[in-house]
Amino acid sequence: MAEKIKVALLGAGNVGSQAARILVEDNAVLEKRIGAPVELIGIAVRDTNASRHWNADPSLYTTDADALIDAADVVIELTGGIEPARTRILRALKAGKSVVSGNKALLAKHGVELQAAADESGAQLSYEAAVAGAIPILRPLRDSLAGDRVTRVLGIMNGTTNYILDQMDTTGASFSDALAEAQKLGYAEADPTADVEGHDAASKAAIVASLAFHSTFTIDDVHTEGITSITADDVAAADADGYVIKLLAICEREGENGANIRVNPTLIPRQHPLAGVHGAFNAVFVEAENAGELMFYGPGAGGAPTASAVLGDFVSLARRLVLGGPGVPETSHAQLHATGLDNVVSRYSVGVLVEDRLGVLANITRILTEHGISVDSLRQSAPKEGVAQIRMVTHSAKDADLRRAIAVIDALDTVREVNSVIRVESEKH
Amino acid sequence: MAEKIKVALLGAGNVGSQAARILVEDNAVLEKRIGAPVELIGIAVRDTNASRHWNADPSLYTTDADALIDAADVVIELTGGIEPARTRILRALKAGKSVVSGNKALLAKHGVELQAAADESGAQLSYEAAVAGAIPILRPLRDSLAGDRVTRVLGIMNGTTNYILDQMDTTGASFSDALAEAQKLGYAEADPTADVEGHDAASKAAIVASLAFHSTFTIDDVHTEGITSITADDVAAADADGYVIKLLAICEREGENGANIRVNPTLIPRQHPLAGVHGAFNAVFVEAENAGELMFYGPGAGGAPTASAVLGDFVSLARRLVLGGPGVPETSHAQLHATGLDNVVSRYSVGVLVEDRLGVLANITRILTEHGISVDSLRQSAPKEGVAQIRMVTHSAKDADLRRAIAVIDALDTVREVNSVIRVESEKH
Repeated sequence: MAEKIKVALLGAGNVGSQAARILVEDNAVLEKRIGAPVELIGIAVRDTNASRHWNADPSLYTTDADALIDAADVVIELTGGIEPARTRILRALKAGKSVVSGNKALLAKHGVELQAAADESGAQLSYEAAVAGAIPILRPLRDSLAGDRVTRVLGIMNGTTNYILDQMDTTGASFSDALAEAQKLGYAEADPTADVEGHDAASKAAIVASLAFHSTFTIDDVHTEGITSITADDVAAADADGYVIKLLAICEREGENGANIRVNPTLIPRQHPLAGVHGAFNAVFVEAENAGELMFYGPGAGGAPTASAVLGDFVSLARRLVLGGPGVPETSHAQLHATGLDNVVSRYSVGVLVEDRLGVLANITRILTEHGISVDSLRQSAPKEGVAQIRMVTHSAKDADLRRAIAVIDALDTVREVNSVIRVESEKH
Repeated sequence: MAEKIKVALLGAGNVGSQAARILVEDNAVLEKRIGAPVELIGIAVRDTNASRHWNADPSLYTTDADALIDAADVVIELTGGIEPARTRILRALKAGKSVVSGNKALLAKHGVELQAAADESGAQLSYEAAVAGAIPILRPLRDSLAGDRVTRVLGIMNGTTNYILDQMDTTGASFSDALAEAQKLGYAEADPTADVEGHDAASKAAIVASLAFHSTFTIDDVHTEGITSITADDVAAADADGYVIKLLAICEREGENGANIRVNPTLIPRQHPLAGVHGAFNAVFVEAENAGELMFYGPGAGGAPTASAVLGDFVSLARRLVLGGPGVPETSHAQLHATGLDNVVSRYSVGVLVEDRLGVLANITRILTEHGISVDSLRQSAPKEGVAQIRMVTHSAKDADLRRAIAVIDALDTVREVNSVIRVESEKH
């Protein structure tokens, strides 16, 4: 039996205390799977007396994270935020200690720096828990699809927004009512900005795109739109056309050397596998040249599920420590660049509030045609007080062309406002 | 750059020729991902002049598999069948050459022997392609869930039977008509026995159970029922109750030291994620203590998808060859034993053809009650020529109790025949 593996845990929040619980309660099983004894030597926290979801032996809690890191073989970082997490992880990696992290914001911003530190010292860095909670997605992208070429990833990677949109879809609720409900049930935080504005999903998209495309993207490469402008009318109109609105993280190859990465509300057909992902669940749909279409589904958050992903990473890297030999570094050989939105091709659902006058509709479709955009379907509501709502779904169009056409339409005297522009993803291009 | 990795391919069928194509066409990408050049040095076949799905350089084909193995660093076995595949893989492993195999029948029968040979020489043995085609499932079980405890796996692991049952469900076709359609479309073979009798799924169940439960099971541990007795009436009755019939491979922990492993037709609720798996697709639903419920979905067969899984294994083990250090051996520390069916608890759908006489129904329910089985729902068709069809769904019952009750019922004078007994899986126990 190899020497004991000493584990330092940073953070004892929802996920951290579950990770601590598993390291203690399932210690015997972990030892058998790793081939060496495992000891949780301490838990770094801000307040050693705070109440926890699960309470470890009180002597394990410490405020001296650096001393704890220095005494450990493996560091598990579950504090979140950029600092002091970044400095602490670098301290561990530079000392050759392998690190498991669930810190999506940090990895999406400083992932290159952290990976470089790991590669230099031969330490392992794993972060499955940073994306889609318990769902194994990073490891399948790194290993299982290592001999394939991923062309596109569509992911429901934020449980809060999926819960809200699912509520709006199934009950007809407004965004604000659905958000209030999500907050009441603990699916949304008091300040829901990071979730509903798409920032959380954008971090995950940058991490997924980097692994899927063997490149290095950061959150700054991700075009991000949230769901705050999605109305009950948008949801009802989508439903009438056989679609459901989801907040998708989309990573898509573009040409030989590019990829566009974005988070935006998206109409997807009811029969698409992602359409059946309800509540706070997550799912990631992967399209690859040889594998075809794969989907990974499960709980995208929660203490125990996310801790499961953390422990999976821990056992995997601990096995390597026991066996000897370096960890497998990331490959970023492809170095695709982020292309932005201009050449993104998709269909669009467009809502326009117009005055009920002769020729308005002809005018709008003429402007679209002039920009190379054709209309697939169009509905107009019965006018109320001289104003009517038009809903169109276009055929495939370039984002730049659509934006230009919308600007012209929005400036028409007879148009009150373009009140909805949402991309539509088809099953295949 | 490390030394060249020489690859021997055994077999050039549907999957083998796709694997050859990827090794040749995507050679530059594979080299970048592995960190060393890769060369396909030969393809062992029975007939060097046969026509292939993809044609490699004619000089690569050889009938001398042993010489090819001896010249290689890595062997990819895609011939299928027990022999000569077993002897050839052992030859490679004993010489320290790592092996990728997609041979489910061989692994379900001789997996322990092969793994032992690999562990002894320090070679790596990977076989993701043996289960559920392109879907990453073995690696997630081995690595991503390595710190969790899997409690149950429910898998649609045979595309042929899923296609047939899906056709029966959506069109009302009989089994034989749906089979004929599947054969016409190439989803079923001329001799469909291995698929429709459940043997193919049973091999996969043994492999999955071994990894999920850190134990060693063979196909002999799997209770196997096929779908040949499923009638259009069974499918319609299931539908009327809100269920769909799927052939599931089920691996379930039983007590502290046991697991029951079985392949049987199963009624699952329409809202279960597995119910939405149509056509020849596969999906594996995993329940784990901490992760909760995960599902993995994708194409379960086909040349290119299965070759994607083969190449994922190849790149992963080739990276390890380049980096140095041994492969990670399987852990079979738990050594659960196969418990058989007696204590399996599930609900049952039972069809009984009865004479239309007073007291028949009371008699049947009395016998069930005497065996500790209560009825959840019951329907009786309008009698035709003095005979009526009863359909019941029971509450949870032990398999042994149900079998005994069925035997008594079947012997009643007023019962023509018990013409359908199918397990019902609930979302949760």
